[in-house]
Amino acid sequence: MAAKGVILAERPDVLELELDPLTRKVYLELAEPSLADNRADVDRLVAALQGKLGGPVVVPLDLMRRVPSVLREAGWQVTATVGFLAPGLWNLVDLEAGDTTRRHFGLAVDIGTTTVVAYLVDMRNGQVLGAAADYNGQVSAGEDLLTRICLAGTPEGLEQLQRALINTLNGLIKRLAQSHELETREISAVAVGANTTMVHLFLGLDPSRICMAPYIPVTNNPGLVSAGQLGLMVNPRAPVYCLPSVASYLGGDVVGGVLASGLHRRSELSLFVDIGTNAEIILGNRDWLLGCAGAAGPALEGGVAASGMRAEPGAVNRVRIDPQTREVHYTTIGGAPPVGICGSGLVDCLAEMFLAGIIDRAGRFKDGRDRFVVVSAEESATGKEIAVTQLDIHNFMRTKGAVNAALELLLESVGLSLSDIEYFYAAGAFGQYLDLESAITIGLYPDLPRERMVRLGNASGEGARLALLSGAIRREGEAIARNITYIELNANQTFMNKFVGSKFLPHTNLDLFPTVKAKLIERGLVEAV
Amino acid sequence: MAAKGVILAERPDVLELELDPLTRKVYLELAEPSLADNRADVDRLVAALQGKLGGPVVVPLDLMRRVPSVLREAGWQVTATVGFLAPGLWNLVDLEAGDTTRRHFGLAVDIGTTTVVAYLVDMRNGQVLGAAADYNGQVSAGEDLLTRICLAGTPEGLEQLQRALINTLNGLIKRLAQSHELETREISAVAVGANTTMVHLFLGLDPSRICMAPYIPVTNNPGLVSAGQLGLMVNPRAPVYCLPSVASYLGGDVVGGVLASGLHRRSELSLFVDIGTNAEIILGNRDWLLGCAGAAGPALEGGVAASGMRAEPGAVNRVRIDPQTREVHYTTIGGAPPVGICGSGLVDCLAEMFLAGIIDRAGRFKDGRDRFVVVSAEESATGKEIAVTQLDIHNFMRTKGAVNAALELLLESVGLSLSDIEYFYAAGAFGQYLDLESAITIGLYPDLPRERMVRLGNASGEGARLALLSGAIRREGEAIARNITYIELNANQTFMNKFVGSKFLPHTNLDLFPTVKAKLIERGLVEAV
Repeated sequence: MAAKGVILAERPDVLELELDPLTRKVYLELAEPSLADNRADVDRLVAALQGKLGGPVVVPLDLMRRVPSVLREAGWQVTATVGFLAPGLWNLVDLEAGDTTRRHFGLAVDIGTTTVVAYLVDMRNGQVLGAAADYNGQVSAGEDLLTRICLAGTPEGLEQLQRALINTLNGLIKRLAQSHELETREISAVAVGANTTMVHLFLGLDPSRICMAPYIPVTNNPGLVSAGQLGLMVNPRAPVYCLPSVASYLGGDVVGGVLASGLHRRSELSLFVDIGTNAEIILGNRDWLLGCAGAAGPALEGGVAASGMRAEPGAVNRVRIDPQTREVHYTTIGGAPPVGICGSGLVDCLAEMFLAGIIDRAGRFKDGRDRFVVVSAEESATGKEIAVTQLDIHNFMRTKGAVNAALELLLESVGLSLSDIEYFYAAGAFGQYLDLESAITIGLYPDLPRERMVRLGNASGEGARLALLSGAIRREGEAIARNITYIELNANQTFMNKFVGSKFLPHTNLDLFPTVKAKLIERGLVEAV
Repeated sequence: MAAKGVILAERPDVLELELDPLTRKVYLELAEPSLADNRADVDRLVAALQGKLGGPVVVPLDLMRRVPSVLREAGWQVTATVGFLAPGLWNLVDLEAGDTTRRHFGLAVDIGTTTVVAYLVDMRNGQVLGAAADYNGQVSAGEDLLTRICLAGTPEGLEQLQRALINTLNGLIKRLAQSHELETREISAVAVGANTTMVHLFLGLDPSRICMAPYIPVTNNPGLVSAGQLGLMVNPRAPVYCLPSVASYLGGDVVGGVLASGLHRRSELSLFVDIGTNAEIILGNRDWLLGCAGAAGPALEGGVAASGMRAEPGAVNRVRIDPQTREVHYTTIGGAPPVGICGSGLVDCLAEMFLAGIIDRAGRFKDGRDRFVVVSAEESATGKEIAVTQLDIHNFMRTKGAVNAALELLLESVGLSLSDIEYFYAAGAFGQYLDLESAITIGLYPDLPRERMVRLGNASGEGARLALLSGAIRREGEAIARNITYIELNANQTFMNKFVGSKFLPHTNLDLFPTVKAKLIERGLVEAV
């Protein structure tokens, strides 16, 4: 199921899901034509399909051309794949000889700025049959979103980025098809969770205006396109559904995450956080939803920290510091010799340094040193020491401060505070591998009863899977996108003020983090009041 | 309005028509985006359109790419052209700067086996702005349907025939656009009336099975395709609607003719006849419809008769014979020197020979001669005499016999007779130019009160125009196609028996033709009983 360390959400409360997938397969035994029943081939097929589906079926011209020979070669026993076009309206996606209803495949895709993950889904029951992941092929043209948006400003650049992404996806599709012994043509539906820019680049839409005020995408609701239009190596008539976006920086990946969390169905107040290259925050319940987003990532994604690296084999991902001896224990991804430190390792290290009294509540080294060595030069695979510097801590405090400030802005705008949050959802790969206690210790996550804190894993991919399987879910997703009140943080003075004030570990008001406060008191790092 | 002698129907009772055209134009003044209203460009456009149309609008990917620049260049004042996709569902066909609602054009097309006619229609009011006609470019590959069906049996042959037809249509479109000073892209909708084989060749569908039992078309209901898929030189996203067919030999041209006649709305019994290369007959009223078809044409279309020719300049089209002197008076099309005789000239000549006592009721020359000279060799443009031979008469008697036999078969199957027919409609170019009295005299048309006999002209084109303008009409047409009970004449023994017995002028039972009987009595050719 897992691939490259990305796993599908394992949520405690599985969303109720009535199977109503983007495509259906219908087996038909048609009467052979005769002088007494001389209906046209396509009309005969459509009438039988309408009888089973209860609504009209559109047959695309290219398939119309093939219908007569398929029907005759199959002895009038065929399986039709039909795709959702609009409520009550279907179009023919494929026609195969015999009964092939037991082979019905869809693809749920999470297109991240850095990583692309594809899940092969059994459309009969919604099960994930396999997953494949790879770096987004656009990375070589530019690591961050802004570079790519600039590049996409010319038709050639846009085409280059679209092709790179489609090539990545086609590689994943080929791998999945090979390992599951199916023809790529047998994949008859695709659903995508991606941020707004990625959706634009996927569809070949110019994202230029996403990064300049007033931040206007071409579309937040691309609806359905056919795979053939995009060059996707599945059935060319397969419907491709992109989860709708809310705004330029709040995309279908987040809407998919909200869907996967189910927070939009619950009366209690929930907080949803996806921290990656950008940080996206959703606050709300079944009655209202607030959202905002901002750049967050480099400090956490290894792009900035002195010893930083991506979460790849050799990355230090867990750190423990003995509060007495200050001896460091660490693990690396894949158990490989240490090369650098990834986001979860950094968060762990900060939390442990804080609990060991090495850094103070402002994130400063108490003894005036300029770095903390996690792995010595001798031990490291590169021969260079792996350390967390004062500058790394400073950068991280900015990221954390931005997340805190954004969250408080959302809370205040509805007259609530951190203590009103009842459920917390962490989405994304970072959220999946982060040590929960460490994240709370440094105030990146709120200090809630742990059973109310849920890791969603690849919530964008899970949202895409749900959209692939259910029309009701797609409508829910569209309602979520429509109903989220988006708070623009760019040029927001209140946010800037809060950001500047959010510079303490775990929070300016320690009482909002009772379990952290207890630990600090226990270790004599703060005094009990 | 008229072109190459083909005119649109001039019916006495114009069909009620509520304008609900295949495409609509909607002028929109959109609010400019701001931080407070940061909806995506396409979403902003779609929301405004939905407000005006009351239903969802699909934006094709290629147009989505253009929306942002069009909106900005137009200063947010644009005209959207939307096309009908399904009831309550529209798709965006075009987006133009400014208010262009006064320029909204559609194309109604009659694709005949021999001739193609295109009408430029003002979609705002349904008016025909102009017409253009040309020979079907497929004619050079084969005059008759069967030759073309054979040729279309290979993918190359099919493609060749489709291309020839599309080239013909594109030529007409270009001519109409030039003469009416518009861009071909401004034509945003197309409706087509054509026989089943022509629809297949138009869409690139293999018609092979149309000519072999049990005579199964690929489709009788092609629905909507986009002009771009066919290579039509109008707006590539323009919806192209083909009037539905009933069966292999009863096509959308006939359904269009029934629509144009309005007989399906009337309680009285009507007879609809379209005699061309094939003869198609519809009998019925608002409660039921019967139809049949068969090869008819060569005898009437100039392909067979010794001096036969198409209805082109120089064709003898009217003939009068002085019953006393047997002197011949004739006119030619365009007043040109006589070259040959066309269908209407032949029918005239037969009727006049019959009324002058030159041929008997069995169609035989009474004096044993083998031909009747209409134009002497000296007078003719070719230096050869133009004559009607005994063989020509024999061939014509077969055509007439087939039409009579088919009609009687239809009547008998519902327990009715010729005298029950209350309205008669003649469709097609032949029906338009035929002398009504002559056609009745020889029994090709029934002998009804003349005010109940209507020439429909190009009823197929008129049906296409109606379909272009009204969704209700399209649904009526689909109901007509569905409800016509098709009587297969091929291998029908009753038909063969009647055919053999239908060899008298005007009819075996003279009492069914009272005005003809009166004339014959008056001239002493039959005795009053």
